[in-house]
Amino acid sequence: MSHPVIASPAFFIGKGNDDLISFGSGQPDLAPPPSAYKVLEHFKSFKYGLVQGEEPLREELAKEYPYAEAEDFVITNGASEAIDLALRAIAKDAPGSKVLLPRPYYYSYPHNVAFAWMIPVYTELEEGKLNFEHFKRDVEGCRAVLINSPSNPTGTVQEVDTLKKIEEYCEERGIYIISDEVYKDLIYVRENYLLHGKRVITINSFSKTYAMCGLRVGYLYSKDRDIIETAVEMKSHTSMNTSLVGQAMALAAMSERDSYVESHAKIWRERRDLMYKGMKALGLDLWEPEGAFYVLPKFKNPARAMHDLYYNHKIITYNGEWFGAPDRLRFSYALDVKKIEEGLRRVKDFLGKEYASY
Amino acid sequence: MSHPVIASPAFFIGKGNDDLISFGSGQPDLAPPPSAYKVLEHFKSFKYGLVQGEEPLREELAKEYPYAEAEDFVITNGASEAIDLALRAIAKDAPGSKVLLPRPYYYSYPHNVAFAWMIPVYTELEEGKLNFEHFKRDVEGCRAVLINSPSNPTGTVQEVDTLKKIEEYCEERGIYIISDEVYKDLIYVRENYLLHGKRVITINSFSKTYAMCGLRVGYLYSKDRDIIETAVEMKSHTSMNTSLVGQAMALAAMSERDSYVESHAKIWRERRDLMYKGMKALGLDLWEPEGAFYVLPKFKNPARAMHDLYYNHKIITYNGEWFGAPDRLRFSYALDVKKIEEGLRRVKDFLGKEYASY
Repeated sequence: MSHPVIASPAFFIGKGNDDLISFGSGQPDLAPPPSAYKVLEHFKSFKYGLVQGEEPLREELAKEYPYAEAEDFVITNGASEAIDLALRAIAKDAPGSKVLLPRPYYYSYPHNVAFAWMIPVYTELEEGKLNFEHFKRDVEGCRAVLINSPSNPTGTVQEVDTLKKIEEYCEERGIYIISDEVYKDLIYVRENYLLHGKRVITINSFSKTYAMCGLRVGYLYSKDRDIIETAVEMKSHTSMNTSLVGQAMALAAMSERDSYVESHAKIWRERRDLMYKGMKALGLDLWEPEGAFYVLPKFKNPARAMHDLYYNHKIITYNGEWFGAPDRLRFSYALDVKKIEEGLRRVKDFLGKEYASY
Repeated sequence: MSHPVIASPAFFIGKGNDDLISFGSGQPDLAPPPSAYKVLEHFKSFKYGLVQGEEPLREELAKEYPYAEAEDFVITNGASEAIDLALRAIAKDAPGSKVLLPRPYYYSYPHNVAFAWMIPVYTELEEGKLNFEHFKRDVEGCRAVLINSPSNPTGTVQEVDTLKKIEEYCEERGIYIISDEVYKDLIYVRENYLLHGKRVITINSFSKTYAMCGLRVGYLYSKDRDIIETAVEMKSHTSMNTSLVGQAMALAAMSERDSYVESHAKIWRERRDLMYKGMKALGLDLWEPEGAFYVLPKFKNPARAMHDLYYNHKIITYNGEWFGAPDRLRFSYALDVKKIEEGLRRVKDFLGKEYASY
């Protein structure tokens, strides 16, 4: 066969038709809260806004975090820019520093670290969980660690006990914790545990909670004054204020927060159950997702499986290798139940055919 | 007096009342084209868009540049992100390289170069103009040069003859030219000359032409395939697609391009004439602006003058030192005629009082 090689998630962008089932990109298919669009009717701003972000939005966010104040937030172009700014701010006085990434990781992280002229190093998750003893060994000599719980791509949530030990250990040693909590409102097993401390930088966004991926509004939150000031200073030169219209939509969306999150929790849980049980029934080896909307089952020769699933069964999956999990495939289940069911039927078909001979 | 020291343009953000005349920030006071808001009525997108930017917008932009194609553009969070991405893409294989900045420069440039882990070096403008002989001497050993014509803060437009020589000289030596042309539609003396060549990266934005500063839509354009691919790859990790709602507004604004730009040209020329003649009449030493909306008159002790103008006369001006012009003050005349007239009266008052004793 002479199909093009699938080298990165970018391959799948723009590929979509009625017949394709995409377990690829991690974006909610559900629409944002109606309030977000309602605000557009009277939207008239056009001048520069505060680089740090509009004050009413930061004040509203501060209510979500204990002890937080509006000045502790920087509104960014999605969580991506928040991570980029956090890493660049940390690297400012210490280029070439090491940053610890639990593996499997979100595929952008090693790039983010490298683009900030720092060096990614790794600690291996065990069945998706952090091992504190290994963590202590692996964080040695690191300037920062990037934690993502609930995790993309593992779907796991870290134990509160482990997170508390990490907090204490890092604070004592002056190691920054970048805590990417973009899935904090999509947890099936417990409430979110907010990592906190003097050198913690929390990353979040409106993309997952409010299904606003394309509008690119995220933020970083920290009680570390130097990090906030450096991030604002950098952003004033590298992108200035985040789009005012996006910020207005985000603020409006927050007015529906509780009812929106609650009504969606049921939908996500139903999809999670369907996906997890369906895959187990097919005999696949995977963890039960505790948060976010991903499963990461084991496959023999995942690159070939991804290839065959796409070209022969019209299913998009992501190669685990992109996430530091070379023996697995990532499936996003941000899809309606009918599509998940059809997708599972196709996976079954694949398992009974090509895969049997791998 | 114990007034706070004014250390950077950030000092003035959020300071504004009816009684204050701001010659500070460089943002048009005129509203964007009505079409830009009209598109909001039916706006419903929320999913991730192409990291490179929406195709209809890039296709429309390609019509503005000879030989351009949609794939030569990357839509960014304003010109700021376009400059950041261009520099980071250049630095990727050559950290620590030198980048030449004509001085006076837009105040973000040295920061942008440093944030990309490169080193800013300078060539002095003469009365706001590039001297090609000095340019050749100063560009020695540089990986890139950043040209801004029409210029913020000088208000000058570079000679076409000089620009052509620079194009040829840099192309022969493989030096990147980043050409920041955000004021290309605000030129009083001639048509814009588009710098072009294999290693030219053109920066532009909707902020000045369409008065859309706060909506943060800009772009970079280059025929250098490697730069475009690297910029898109970086952006896919550092901010992803530019806000879809901003891009929709930008595309709508373009439908009114010619009539909007033409009707505004008259307004800008009237303001330019008023500002320049008014300042000459006050005996100030300055160049006649050829583009953009800034004048850069000489002052004795500009830091003190900026301070007194603000605290005693309620006028915001920017210290020339922030732009590498330590003997001058920058005045933006993006203000209506009445405010410019009142501002000039206050400057006259200042010149006759405190300033006389400097």
